Amino acid sequence: MQFHHHGYVSADPRVQPAAGTGLDRPTELPDEMDVLIVGSGPAGMLLSAQMSQFPGVTTRMIERRDGRLVLGQADGIQPRSVETFQAFGFAERIVAEAYNIGYMNFWGPDPANPRNIVRTARTEDYGFKISEFPHLIVNQARVLDYFAEAAAHGPGRIAPDYGIEFVGLTVHEAGEYPVEVTVRYTAGEREGQDRTVRAKYVAGCDGARSGVREAIGRTHVGDFAAHAWGVMDVLVNTDFPDWRTKCAINSEAGNILHIPREGGYLSRMYIDLGEVAADDDHRVRQTPIEEIIRKANAILHPYAIDVKQVAWHSVYEVGHRVTDGFDDAPADGARDPRVFLTGDACHTHSAKAGQGMNVSMQDGFNLGWKLGHVLTGLSPASLLATYTAERRPVAQQLIDFDREWSTLMARKPEEITDPQDLATYYLATAEFPSGFMTQYGPSMITGAAAHQERAEGFPLGKRFKSVEVTRVCDGNAVHLGHHAKADGRWRVYAFADTATAGEASALASWAEWMSSPESPVSRFTPAGADVDAVFDVKAIYQQSYDEVDIARVPAAFLPKTGPLGLTDWEKVYAAGPSAWNSADIFAERGLSRDGVVIVVRPDQYVAAILPLQARDELTAFFAQSLLPQTADA
Amino acid sequence: MQFHHHGYVSADPRVQPAAGTGLDRPTELPDEMDVLIVGSGPAGMLLSAQMSQFPGVTTRMIERRDGRLVLGQADGIQPRSVETFQAFGFAERIVAEAYNIGYMNFWGPDPANPRNIVRTARTEDYGFKISEFPHLIVNQARVLDYFAEAAAHGPGRIAPDYGIEFVGLTVHEAGEYPVEVTVRYTAGEREGQDRTVRAKYVAGCDGARSGVREAIGRTHVGDFAAHAWGVMDVLVNTDFPDWRTKCAINSEAGNILHIPREGGYLSRMYIDLGEVAADDDHRVRQTPIEEIIRKANAILHPYAIDVKQVAWHSVYEVGHRVTDGFDDAPADGARDPRVFLTGDACHTHSAKAGQGMNVSMQDGFNLGWKLGHVLTGLSPASLLATYTAERRPVAQQLIDFDREWSTLMARKPEEITDPQDLATYYLATAEFPSGFMTQYGPSMITGAAAHQERAEGFPLGKRFKSVEVTRVCDGNAVHLGHHAKADGRWRVYAFADTATAGEASALASWAEWMSSPESPVSRFTPAGADVDAVFDVKAIYQQSYDEVDIARVPAAFLPKTGPLGLTDWEKVYAAGPSAWNSADIFAERGLSRDGVVIVVRPDQYVAAILPLQARDELTAFFAQSLLPQTADA
Repeated sequence: MQFHHHGYVSADPRVQPAAGTGLDRPTELPDEMDVLIVGSGPAGMLLSAQMSQFPGVTTRMIERRDGRLVLGQADGIQPRSVETFQAFGFAERIVAEAYNIGYMNFWGPDPANPRNIVRTARTEDYGFKISEFPHLIVNQARVLDYFAEAAAHGPGRIAPDYGIEFVGLTVHEAGEYPVEVTVRYTAGEREGQDRTVRAKYVAGCDGARSGVREAIGRTHVGDFAAHAWGVMDVLVNTDFPDWRTKCAINSEAGNILHIPREGGYLSRMYIDLGEVAADDDHRVRQTPIEEIIRKANAILHPYAIDVKQVAWHSVYEVGHRVTDGFDDAPADGARDPRVFLTGDACHTHSAKAGQGMNVSMQDGFNLGWKLGHVLTGLSPASLLATYTAERRPVAQQLIDFDREWSTLMARKPEEITDPQDLATYYLATAEFPSGFMTQYGPSMITGAAAHQERAEGFPLGKRFKSVEVTRVCDGNAVHLGHHAKADGRWRVYAFADTATAGEASALASWAEWMSSPESPVSRFTPAGADVDAVFDVKAIYQQSYDEVDIARVPAAFLPKTGPLGLTDWEKVYAAGPSAWNSADIFAERGLSRDGVVIVVRPDQYVAAILPLQARDELTAFFAQSLLPQTADA
Repeated sequence: MQFHHHGYVSADPRVQPAAGTGLDRPTELPDEMDVLIVGSGPAGMLLSAQMSQFPGVTTRMIERRDGRLVLGQADGIQPRSVETFQAFGFAERIVAEAYNIGYMNFWGPDPANPRNIVRTARTEDYGFKISEFPHLIVNQARVLDYFAEAAAHGPGRIAPDYGIEFVGLTVHEAGEYPVEVTVRYTAGEREGQDRTVRAKYVAGCDGARSGVREAIGRTHVGDFAAHAWGVMDVLVNTDFPDWRTKCAINSEAGNILHIPREGGYLSRMYIDLGEVAADDDHRVRQTPIEEIIRKANAILHPYAIDVKQVAWHSVYEVGHRVTDGFDDAPADGARDPRVFLTGDACHTHSAKAGQGMNVSMQDGFNLGWKLGHVLTGLSPASLLATYTAERRPVAQQLIDFDREWSTLMARKPEEITDPQDLATYYLATAEFPSGFMTQYGPSMITGAAAHQERAEGFPLGKRFKSVEVTRVCDGNAVHLGHHAKADGRWRVYAFADTATAGEASALASWAEWMSSPESPVSRFTPAGADVDAVFDVKAIYQQSYDEVDIARVPAAFLPKTGPLGLTDWEKVYAAGPSAWNSADIFAERGLSRDGVVIVVRPDQYVAAILPLQARDELTAFFAQSLLPQTADA
């Protein structure tokens, strides 16, 4: 965590100094704003936290509810989401309070007595197998709390506008604030009153029954399956020995997906309520909790649960739907989009794979920096078209995965030929539910894979998978990727050729060029801004940390920033072994020993892989999505 | 982190439900209170956080300052202190914002050109070599913030009474609140007014110029050395390559102890100002900052610092003093103590070894639970005499270490025969500055070492050094010691003999006895309290977690607690290897394979080591410091 560089900070360093629109932010929703976020779920909250890093942009977030979410439905947290929390500064806190999934166990009918269930398999969960981050269970309400804190502590000081709901919108062809939005107060002194406000952009983060989606004429395409599930968060006493282990239970009486929750006592059960008649007309949703508990006990036989408290319960039919477009841009591309859909507003599915909240957050992470860059003049408005292009395929992949998983989970015992196949499927597909399968295709912000062989462990378009390196200034082992906060900046990692600092090398030449007027840094960083305001440029040497003399490292990697012009010491790393780090990022990620430049997007996806010599290509890559910033601009 | 067991918790689980005196805590200092803490430094703040876990006790803490400490002087955090922060629930947060000491480097005169300094040695810091916790640097103000939060979030909801200073006290022979204390308002509407309040006990945490110490007639014994040091926290640009590494710099122009601070930019320098004339009369304290910076640059030659901002600076002469007694009990032991001294009020020394704040906190940790136990009727008042008996030798040890370290640090180059000897001393003595050398002698709360050979890695009287084990209920690897929060409870770890759960074994017999009316649990737990309110009893089996059937574990290790009577699943552990844990606590700590009971005090010190068969001895041990609690008491 870096601070004090704008002068001494006495209190919590997570509270950044207010700036721009955060300096005197009005409590009341203004008449005009740059970004209006509709809904404060996972996508909206992340988006507000991200926009708080762009204090030059006026961002507001309206929420129908009159306050904080008390009890959310989602609870599964992918390793990719924890990685995202790390970038927003709260991973270590949420990990400390969440349930960590260590194993997933499988139960099936006892062959000797099929009325009883027996444990058929234990599988180690994929979390720590696939990432340095765990696979967690924690209530959505807490995730929202942490993002709300990040939004409030960012320079933009963004707080939700509670008690205001979305009514409708019109996108005008012209004007500085072309989106006219009607909102209604649902609480407080103005309850029941309508108001019209104007925004440059609107993000519809308003859930499965999205009013924004309806207003832009997009439709949810898909179906409800004829299978119903009861879900309950319960405090119980039980003789079921896996109460605190995630389990898939398959019994003659039906199926349960069992998920322990944070805190050591509570667990969630998804209980199979069976096929629903074609003419049921959602009557199954009225199933009383007593019936759900009775069914759970039937499935668990010979074990039983004695329910002491029901924290929450619901009944739903599995549905799988994707919206036909994620923004309001016309099919002919005649204008750039002004309204975006995220999360459940554009993709809904069953809850059991623990995906929904995670994919929603990544929607917000994808959209946020793009809005920030366009609205601060760094990028052209055409950048915004990449949101739909990138996120719609992810939503479709999610629906496909969930449909397959739900079907497997809802099988009858007689349909299961191999009792291990669910366990096998669970592990074989781990990359998807852990959140790491997303791979964005070539675009203005993701380059072509011409030089992929120089960095085989950093697939283009996938998220930058961190490795521990040694920080040269102090010898500490740190995760290279964890230094990249969700601050809207591009990362440029210059992996050195074989020479160390102070010797003639491709890296030294590259660094000299990066400090010259021809470099992307000079071209695309606004005049007057810190030299690292747009590009966070780091060097990673192949040597051990004590073989890199930081006094001889090029100035490009030791920028002087902030009002005091202080040297930033934390951009120079060493890959060689040290007392506290045995990993070698060159070996672990298959990096060329001739050096390689890896460009990583503000949302952590690998955007370009280039040789140190490919200077024009680097400039050309950035010129696709960044506007030249002249000194008099 | 365990919660939800009193019903579903929606918000931050670190905020415990208010109870007892925390339910309607008055803002104004009351006329009578159980405990009055004077001063809100590290010892006082820890004490208030600890007392907040005893909501049946009325605790107040007065502080002369009218608000939060903005800039503290101390900054060194021993691994033992981080271990303590873990017990108070904020280790992961303070680690995230602190500077982690990875190395300590040593600089001396260049033999070829003695006017210049050169790096003579790098040593890996002892933090992670000696503990699972790091050795940190972070401002005292932040440590206080976190303890203040723990105090405010505990059931007792304790907040400091700012703007009130201590004037004097009298200890009366009789009465329920025998300590009469005069205080004065230093801020607010009542500024300048005196008031008399009464307390059962007073803790003087009021620093080196302690008024409480004076009031009870104790005196600081010791001397000032004739050596002065300037200290400054500065933001600089520099060509000195170790600006971000802890260094001892020995040059012809003097000595510097250089300590990087949190945030990546700030560092602290202790700069040798040389011998002070006998008739100086503390005039050296007036040394201007410009002179300190000039001296620093002279020592650093050929390197230089360009100071951009001075966050704080001071000048002091090294002093080493210990108070002749840490409480007000008469030498003849005619009555139990009523007033206690902690921290700088009873031991002062140089700042450079980074010890003061750490030892002060352990003073508070030692005293807090004892006050809590006596005031809630669990223990006799005689328990309080152990505070001085245990902490005064630690203070003397501190002074001795610091005197030696300060002398070594202040040597001239010509006095140094081996340039490595400071590095050697630094590592050889690491156990002391890391905070782990404290070993309490036999007393009513620390047993005799008759069975030490059954647990060689848990020396009696030293703090319980944790090892990772596997939690049986969910297969997670967790640190056994980290489950023990600073909640004032005794820990009883029952390490099993070779049988697993469900088989006849010494452990099974012991567990049956522990659930019987003869056990310490039954004798010393108040009627109506949860069965684990005084003793947190855990089992650790030798098998792997999947070889322990939790359904067959004795009830003593699966207690039902809280208003809902819910099973606590987190008291049963396995030592055998699992996917997430390769450590075997039996092997790592030399535990007898015949089983052993380890009793750990509420402040984390190993108190008793007994065979599973030694039931009477276990009861007898607890009977020394706990009072029988009959059902009708």
